[in-house]
Amino acid sequence: MEKKIVPYERKTHYYETDRMAIIHHSNYIRWFEEARTDFLEQVGFSYEKMEKIGVSLPVLGASCEYIHFLQFNDQISIRLKIKNFSGLRMTIYYEVINKANGNISAVGETKHCFVNHEMKPIRLKRDYPEIYQLFENYTEK
Amino acid sequence: MEKKIVPYERKTHYYETDRMAIIHHSNYIRWFEEARTDFLEQVGFSYEKMEKIGVSLPVLGASCEYIHFLQFNDQISIRLKIKNFSGLRMTIYYEVINKANGNISAVGETKHCFVNHEMKPIRLKRDYPEIYQLFENYTEK
Amino acid sequence: MEKKIVPYERKTHYYETDRMAIIHHSNYIRWFEEARTDFLEQVGFSYEKMEKIGVSLPVLGASCEYIHFLQFNDQISIRLKIKNFSGLRMTIYYEVINKANGNISAVGETKHCFVNHEMKPIRLKRDYPEIYQLFENYTEK
Amino acid sequence: MEKKIVPYERKTHYYETDRMAIIHHSNYIRWFEEARTDFLEQVGFSYEKMEKIGVSLPVLGASCEYIHFLQFNDQISIRLKIKNFSGLRMTIYYEVINKANGNISAVGETKHCFVNHEMKPIRLKRDYPEIYQLFENYTEK
Repeated sequence: MEKKIVPYERKTHYYETDRMAIIHHSNYIRWFEEARTDFLEQVGFSYEKMEKIGVSLPVLGASCEYIHFLQFNDQISIRLKIKNFSGLRMTIYYEVINKANGNISAVGETKHCFVNHEMKPIRLKRDYPEIYQLFENYTEK
Repeated sequence: MEKKIVPYERKTHYYETDRMAIIHHSNYIRWFEEARTDFLEQVGFSYEKMEKIGVSLPVLGASCEYIHFLQFNDQISIRLKIKNFSGLRMTIYYEVINKANGNISAVGETKHCFVNHEMKPIRLKRDYPEIYQLFENYTEK
Repeated sequence: MEKKIVPYERKTHYYETDRMAIIHHSNYIRWFEEARTDFLEQVGFSYEKMEKIGVSLPVLGASCEYIHFLQFNDQISIRLKIKNFSGLRMTIYYEVINKANGNISAVGETKHCFVNHEMKPIRLKRDYPEIYQLFENYTEK
Repeated sequence: MEKKIVPYERKTHYYETDRMAIIHHSNYIRWFEEARTDFLEQVGFSYEKMEKIGVSLPVLGASCEYIHFLQFNDQISIRLKIKNFSGLRMTIYYEVINKANGNISAVGETKHCFVNHEMKPIRLKRDYPEIYQLFENYTEK
């Protein structure tokens, strides 16, 4: 049975603000990475495990829509969902929530493929059925 | 007649690399902003002019597709196009070129609206016809 | 009686690494700011309080000595001490610890003055004796 | 005879500003690296050459004193000097100038040693006398 995923939380940093006194839009792409690292560890595919078996998840694309801006010291919570997982590729979907009011601050996606150390594509289902199952369990149907 | 736009050029920085020895994907979103600032200055809508008349261009969305990775000290050239300009909103399209081989390293888009100092939407055609024309001249038909 | 300060902790992020597969040295200066924000909140001088009374702490200088490098996903702990507090100026001293082995990864300092909204220097002892006492309590003798 | 070094120049970026509408102090440490890369290339010790012979220059320490703040789109010029060059270690000194008014915005230093690919210290005078001479020529007496 799949484990319940805890959203990734942290405060925004002063150095992430810009001259409009809001969080600069580029930081959301970095937060997606922080949340993804945390999420992958929770589903059982930690960075250490990825390193050990020689699989990595390069970013093929990233996008973000900005809905309500954030300010310095806001507590945020990021929820993730896996979409379109094929064992070759997957899309991760993100929602950035402002904890103070529950507003969705931004939504976004990153697209990934699975590659080995030589950057060659991997078929998880065939090569790593156990990891395939991990992701399959957490993929939105 | 519209002026020819010079692509934005610079080298990648060491601090923009990551542990894969490639440029971290989040930096492209920042480069889009650098190139946009330069582009707007070339079309006659410099940051100083925007400040003076109290118009700004918040980012509503940003996306990037990564095609060929870049490394430290690569010389890049960024070409921009305005798309879907309505006087209320516009999309800017970006191509990041690796100058050494001419490869398209990445393509992306940012979506913007025009607002005044109170963050209220502006209708350029009605309120600033001269600026409307500037953007209209550079919009891809 | 003064409250015991809890060190600031977090993991290093992937986007903070560089092509040597270590954390880029510039990030430590940013971590000092994160730890300082957390520390000031703990001593009773939160960012919200600073905003309310109109006092801020610009950075006059920053320095860092790098002792043992850090890698992606390392858990770090940052301890702070106030030094040379005069009510006009102060120095904050930082130690970045690698939690896995207890090694001191880096030490550093930031120098600050106290200013009001017009960026004019403030004498805390005279103008804000209560805040003067807060800092005095936590200053290394 | 030694070549005259051209200062490193560029504009500040929007994403380098913070909520005080000034350039965030951490960016100066990154600019020092940009200016250093450019400087080393000018003295004849480019990144490509370093890679080829397997010598690198890790940062042992970095510091910056902030004198006059900078804002978005300011044109800056960074001048470098080598100090305390011993063939084992060296200090690089930086001055960040605001081109619009000639003000010194900040001064700083970075400390380095010379190491090989295994991160073992190198004695330039003995192992690479030609490179030793390059640095010696540009060291402030």
